[in-house]
Amino acid sequence: MAVYTQISAEDMADYVRAFDAGELRSAKGIAEGVENSNYLVETDKGRFIFTVYEKRVDVNDLPFFLAMIDHLVARGCPVPAALKTRDGAGTITRQGKAMAMMHFMPGLSVSHPTPGQARAAGRALGQLHTALADFPMHRPNALGPQGWYDLAERCGDDLDQIQPGLKTRVAEECAFLKVHWPSQLAQSVIHADLFPDNVLMSGDQVCAVIDFYFACTEIRAWDLAVTHSSWSFDATDNQYVPEIGDALMTGYEDSFGLNAAERAAFPVLARGACLRFLLTRAWDWLNTPADAIVTRKDPLAYLARLNHYAAL
Amino acid sequence: MAVYTQISAEDMADYVRAFDAGELRSAKGIAEGVENSNYLVETDKGRFIFTVYEKRVDVNDLPFFLAMIDHLVARGCPVPAALKTRDGAGTITRQGKAMAMMHFMPGLSVSHPTPGQARAAGRALGQLHTALADFPMHRPNALGPQGWYDLAERCGDDLDQIQPGLKTRVAEECAFLKVHWPSQLAQSVIHADLFPDNVLMSGDQVCAVIDFYFACTEIRAWDLAVTHSSWSFDATDNQYVPEIGDALMTGYEDSFGLNAAERAAFPVLARGACLRFLLTRAWDWLNTPADAIVTRKDPLAYLARLNHYAAL
Repeated sequence: MAVYTQISAEDMADYVRAFDAGELRSAKGIAEGVENSNYLVETDKGRFIFTVYEKRVDVNDLPFFLAMIDHLVARGCPVPAALKTRDGAGTITRQGKAMAMMHFMPGLSVSHPTPGQARAAGRALGQLHTALADFPMHRPNALGPQGWYDLAERCGDDLDQIQPGLKTRVAEECAFLKVHWPSQLAQSVIHADLFPDNVLMSGDQVCAVIDFYFACTEIRAWDLAVTHSSWSFDATDNQYVPEIGDALMTGYEDSFGLNAAERAAFPVLARGACLRFLLTRAWDWLNTPADAIVTRKDPLAYLARLNHYAAL
Repeated sequence: MAVYTQISAEDMADYVRAFDAGELRSAKGIAEGVENSNYLVETDKGRFIFTVYEKRVDVNDLPFFLAMIDHLVARGCPVPAALKTRDGAGTITRQGKAMAMMHFMPGLSVSHPTPGQARAAGRALGQLHTALADFPMHRPNALGPQGWYDLAERCGDDLDQIQPGLKTRVAEECAFLKVHWPSQLAQSVIHADLFPDNVLMSGDQVCAVIDFYFACTEIRAWDLAVTHSSWSFDATDNQYVPEIGDALMTGYEDSFGLNAAERAAFPVLARGACLRFLLTRAWDWLNTPADAIVTRKDPLAYLARLNHYAAL
């Protein structure tokens, strides 16, 4: 949520030329994406998002992410196309960092989705899954089940600083998931972070799906579980909103759908999704100064959501 | 340099409607302006900068700033026009904060100005001064001479933490300016912060002068001194660059000009400009944690510039 790498206008004009993107007219650092620095730039050829990859993205993963984006764009998914440099590369390296450039796409990230918007988001996720069925690359999910168990271990007793008893609750959930995790379900490359933040909408239309930097090879239906757990709860009180959850599922069924085994395992997949966000948020919470400008996201929002799915 | 006030897409759509600015299509928080939160928004009517005034701007000053902007726009100065609400107000209050909306203007803030750009900036400053000659409002300069002397007092011994001997150097300069400050020179409302950051350029053309939130009633030629001290030194080594300083003065002479008394006092005015930025930066330096995301600006850059003018 900050611009970590400052780029002068003169340098930006030069970097943009490397992507054959025309003459720079305007460049504004934007407070978007926890992971990277982003600029909204305008040239005589159009508007673009210029991204500087910061330390949380491994540059070795960039060929995977950029190939995935190319693949989705080629199949007509609503994803911002990435530019190539004059010599065909997807990134440049300047100021010691990798940088890429995508087409700007309009649209708004909703905070209080309507059922129509949730259905459109579900449909867009199914569209991604259809397109990714023949995407040949792989990337392990560092934030899959083993990642959660490790993170729970690393947070340790400090979890109880967030809420007394949280360490025990997390340990119980890890124990449950170790036994019941449906590892046999079909895998695919997935988005893995399709929060409302990462869907740009105009009314009930999806303009763009963005931020592919958690994409990985994982149980495909888990992607729907991540989406369901992030869209279907009231942002203020974390109460489940059935109209939203149902609309999301309907939209996904419109365009891709779950088989019987995936449907049966869905509550367990959703518990895994909640545990993943509970733990990564807990880790950030425990390791971010309270007065930092970066907003700490509340881990307990995901405890409430976890409890909802566990009660099903 | 951060977005302090988060606004949901739904709320932004509503706020933008209050300014009769059309239907919201896109909104990005931008990392611009140390003082306020800013969003670059797009509607079916155009592009705009939406500003949320944070604690460093006194809401009681907003009528002054907005009247000044209206005055400059009416006289054809390159300044982003501010929108009015349906009932003619310049601001709305939401989430407990005042908010305003200006037209977006393209252009880039240069980091290494060319003589052509410096001449254009000087000309634009003279154009502002011409337009402001009949602007009837007043606002005291909290960062005028008395403000510097008070700030030097408040920084006290801590100045030597920045550089040994700085406290004595500052005290000497305050003593010099108390005696030699040319208080009899003509006053006017001035911009008071025309750094390269606050001029959006396209090639050698000024697209827009922005950020009027230090504007105040002050010795008019001091505005040129502030501009001269911020444009005419190399950003890396703080060496004076005569071609830039000369071009800036020439541009100002093209459109407004100094009289003999102002010209004679110019080195003293420039020393005051350097002391002002040295001290406000020193204060921020001493009161901002070293690991904060907000960039601390180096006070010593202005000691080097002060020494240049003092040696004239």
